[in-house]
Amino acid sequence: MVKRISHKASCCPIARPLDVIGDGWSLLIVRDIFDGLHRFGELQKNLGVAKNILAARLRNLVEHGILETAPVADGSEYQEYLLTAKGRGLFPLLVALRQWGEDYFFDDNEIGVHLVDRKRGQPIKRLELRAQDGRLLAAEDTLVSHAPPKATAASQPAKK
Amino acid sequence: MVKRISHKASCCPIARPLDVIGDGWSLLIVRDIFDGLHRFGELQKNLGVAKNILAARLRNLVEHGILETAPVADGSEYQEYLLTAKGRGLFPLLVALRQWGEDYFFDDNEIGVHLVDRKRGQPIKRLELRAQDGRLLAAEDTLVSHAPPKATAASQPAKK
Repeated sequence: MVKRISHKASCCPIARPLDVIGDGWSLLIVRDIFDGLHRFGELQKNLGVAKNILAARLRNLVEHGILETAPVADGSEYQEYLLTAKGRGLFPLLVALRQWGEDYFFDDNEIGVHLVDRKRGQPIKRLELRAQDGRLLAAEDTLVSHAPPKATAASQPAKK
Repeated sequence: MVKRISHKASCCPIARPLDVIGDGWSLLIVRDIFDGLHRFGELQKNLGVAKNILAARLRNLVEHGILETAPVADGSEYQEYLLTAKGRGLFPLLVALRQWGEDYFFDDNEIGVHLVDRKRGQPIKRLELRAQDGRLLAAEDTLVSHAPPKATAASQPAKK
């Protein structure tokens, strides 16, 4: 067995969260819950994943505060899985993954599911990376800096 | 050994790319190459990953057209790993992961590295999800639709 290296103590904000969601199933579970599947059986059926693996992944996502459980409203003994604010914070990441997937893993006429604006039914815009003054940025216009960043009014992350 | 289920034939643009990058190392390799590490030894040292695992991940990323190899300019026998257009297309995903990591995996004063606008040194803006008409969208303002989306001038993915 290969021991999984933990990035828990990494100073990199890309590495640390990959410990929690970088396993190939967790993001699909989160995607399904965004899409309205909330019960173990529904998730298991849709994902086609072994029950023990799904149970372990759900437990991990609950432990890390990405999901929470709640009793089902019908009074039965079932529980359902809901996204916390931290879990809902994964939406831009899923959109980025979706747009990259659409670009490079599908032929143009092959894409059967689309993420649309609920109000108008039109596809959402591509994610854009922008500077504080609104300039569109490519990767090469950015820099990973170890110095404290120059303060701006909008530099604080908006915790939802 | 648990057999890994392939999402190669999935119709979901989130599932299909996870086959290629959903292993916990590949995105860190891509991050390091964006940050300017291009040689096997540099990547191995920075990631602290076993050589055989790194070699397998790099081979997989090359096979899937995310990286390409090129001889090093100094005329030695070394080769370096470069991002293709498909690889550079992962930048918004890395930014989304970084911003989520900053929000939920670090205390406010704990973050030591920042992604900044190279020109001004200010942190880049948060990724925003917008409708074609510019409205800011939350997850609940969107819908996964199996119907062909209503056409818009900007609905074609911009293959770089």
